[in-house]
Amino acid sequence: MQNLAHRLERLGTETAFSVAQAAAAWKAQGNTVFPFHLGDINIPTAPNIIEAMNRAIADGHTGYCPGPGIPQLREALAEDIGSRRGITFGPDNVVVMTGGKPVITKFLQAVMNPGEEVLYPNPGFPIYESQIEYLGGTAVPYRYVPTESGFAIDLDQIRASITPNTTAIIYNDLQNPISAESTAAEREAVAKLAIEHDLWVLSDEAYFETRYEGVSSSIAALPGMAERTVILYTFSKKFAMTGSRLGCAVAPLQIAQVLSKLNTNDESCTTHYVQWAGIEALRGPQDSVQSMLDVLKGRRDAACELVNAIPGFQVAVPQSTFYLFPDVTEAMERLGHSAVGDFATAALHNTGMSFCTREHFGRRLAGEDRQYIRLAYSGIETADIRLGLGRLREWIESA
Amino acid sequence: MQNLAHRLERLGTETAFSVAQAAAAWKAQGNTVFPFHLGDINIPTAPNIIEAMNRAIADGHTGYCPGPGIPQLREALAEDIGSRRGITFGPDNVVVMTGGKPVITKFLQAVMNPGEEVLYPNPGFPIYESQIEYLGGTAVPYRYVPTESGFAIDLDQIRASITPNTTAIIYNDLQNPISAESTAAEREAVAKLAIEHDLWVLSDEAYFETRYEGVSSSIAALPGMAERTVILYTFSKKFAMTGSRLGCAVAPLQIAQVLSKLNTNDESCTTHYVQWAGIEALRGPQDSVQSMLDVLKGRRDAACELVNAIPGFQVAVPQSTFYLFPDVTEAMERLGHSAVGDFATAALHNTGMSFCTREHFGRRLAGEDRQYIRLAYSGIETADIRLGLGRLREWIESA
Repeated sequence: MQNLAHRLERLGTETAFSVAQAAAAWKAQGNTVFPFHLGDINIPTAPNIIEAMNRAIADGHTGYCPGPGIPQLREALAEDIGSRRGITFGPDNVVVMTGGKPVITKFLQAVMNPGEEVLYPNPGFPIYESQIEYLGGTAVPYRYVPTESGFAIDLDQIRASITPNTTAIIYNDLQNPISAESTAAEREAVAKLAIEHDLWVLSDEAYFETRYEGVSSSIAALPGMAERTVILYTFSKKFAMTGSRLGCAVAPLQIAQVLSKLNTNDESCTTHYVQWAGIEALRGPQDSVQSMLDVLKGRRDAACELVNAIPGFQVAVPQSTFYLFPDVTEAMERLGHSAVGDFATAALHNTGMSFCTREHFGRRLAGEDRQYIRLAYSGIETADIRLGLGRLREWIESA
Repeated sequence: MQNLAHRLERLGTETAFSVAQAAAAWKAQGNTVFPFHLGDINIPTAPNIIEAMNRAIADGHTGYCPGPGIPQLREALAEDIGSRRGITFGPDNVVVMTGGKPVITKFLQAVMNPGEEVLYPNPGFPIYESQIEYLGGTAVPYRYVPTESGFAIDLDQIRASITPNTTAIIYNDLQNPISAESTAAEREAVAKLAIEHDLWVLSDEAYFETRYEGVSSSIAALPGMAERTVILYTFSKKFAMTGSRLGCAVAPLQIAQVLSKLNTNDESCTTHYVQWAGIEALRGPQDSVQSMLDVLKGRRDAACELVNAIPGFQVAVPQSTFYLFPDVTEAMERLGHSAVGDFATAALHNTGMSFCTREHFGRRLAGEDRQYIRLAYSGIETADIRLGLGRLREWIESA
């Protein structure tokens, strides 16, 4: 049989799935597992959203619909996303997708040629790195430095990484996995670089409305940015709709047309009746959004307090996302671990705590000397957060 | 602003959407339109399928699920698809997708390098040509010749088109748009070529179970073929689920693993609860499938009879799909049209008949001297089929 295509040698993946598999295997042996590895939400989609979907089915919306989405949803998204960011978008700027994730590959397909460089956050969502390289580009990481309140982008390093061959920058404010949030000054500095070097920008805003204090801002709202920025929007996190696969790109018209054509080629359209559910999510009652945030905030507060009580663990309290990215360097030293993956495996087998590590979020950079893990609290109740982190503390204290 | 990526210059699309737009514009001016252009189905998805989806939602299946699909659906698909074809598949051969269409680009990404050649049917589904060229390959068309019972593949031409650089062949038995069906001998001849020249095969079987007489056969069931063939399967046509976006690839393990990794990169997974609906579609009562086929058969019989009564129109009665691809050469000559697109526009404006033409299904080949249109009867009632084709007949007779 012939070989497979060479491009597959450049295709990465989300290695975090192996953590889920290890957790499931450990659980299958009769052990308790505390699932801090999931970026998923253990809260049901609100009933009014499901009812709207069923009304759409009863109304006959079970056939194909336009590749860029139904006009009514595109209009609702333009209005909602624009008004929350202080930007005027029309429905033609919106291209509905099967979740937020497809925006990553489709943005890169639209703007990046093979051999060109794209800046991406590292640690960051692993599909950035995978898709840049899969499509023949060079993935150029930019790094973060720890601060009092979390993490800041190393602007000097990012500046030094730009070459005439740089095409785009992927920016993920309210960041997965590290929960970094830019100050206004940092956001403006990134925008300035994008404009000076004429870069396209993918602004991954998956967690824009998953926040407990403060107000989110979009880099697309800064002067000169809307025309070069594609916003990745998703219903997944805000509306507990991860399994519904509904999101969109908000893009300058010329790119929106390309994304729409890619949709027609790739999957025809996004599930028709789920789009009607999306309209209800945006325009219907918002109390379930607030009550979910209240639940997540309770979990965050419990988790942060407990994490900082573990010897050799340290984390700032993030105002958004549902991830903690504690520095665990001293705890690992105490236990005699030098590889964070081994530490995670030992934690699972000694305490049932299952979590991803820094290694699941892009390749390790030269000079990294601190160790981090990612704790997701979106899929685990506060009682289990207390129990799991309590066991982790005991295990480390006893070392 | 920087230019967009060069690869977009090679991206085609489904130009049939412009037919839908022209029809909608004509209708908006107060005219009656007979929608023969739609490959969509004006029959609702069966209630038991929708109920299964709602049970899944109530059971909490609203979160992420595995990239290749939920194990229960993969198992049901392996069983159903395998047993209907006389092939043994396991769940690991099945990769669930957001419809059948994504199998096209993902198959090509998996097996074809830039610069390699892929054989594809022409006239054929336009996304074959688009994705081969978009991904940097050379799309090499193979043609059909008219027969008493429909169309046959020109095997001499296909044989002459194979070079050492040929990687794959796309085979669409029960063909859209021409409703061609291979004889057993033709299917075996294509398989023989694939084996002799060590080609990967994409077998697009979207219409495998949309048939009114006879029994479908899969090229994958022939000796030596399962290990080199990826089957494109979709729930769209059989279960009137076009808008649900549910399908799968059935592939040799090594390719299934690649497709699964591509899913993880592109869209994480297919809508979770829709997958549970798919299990019900496969394993629940099948009476709605039969009653839909009965309806479609009635439409086919009416349409074929009326088409063949139009002067200068000629079509064989296809046993499957829901398309007719009549030769309209003499009718066009009678009306003084040399371009089939102009003929279609004139038909719309004179009779309200809206349909696609040969031009929407891949680029015209050298030496083509007959003219064809495609009439889809899946989205139009028998009464309107009679009315529309009656008007078309009157218009042509009066010329």
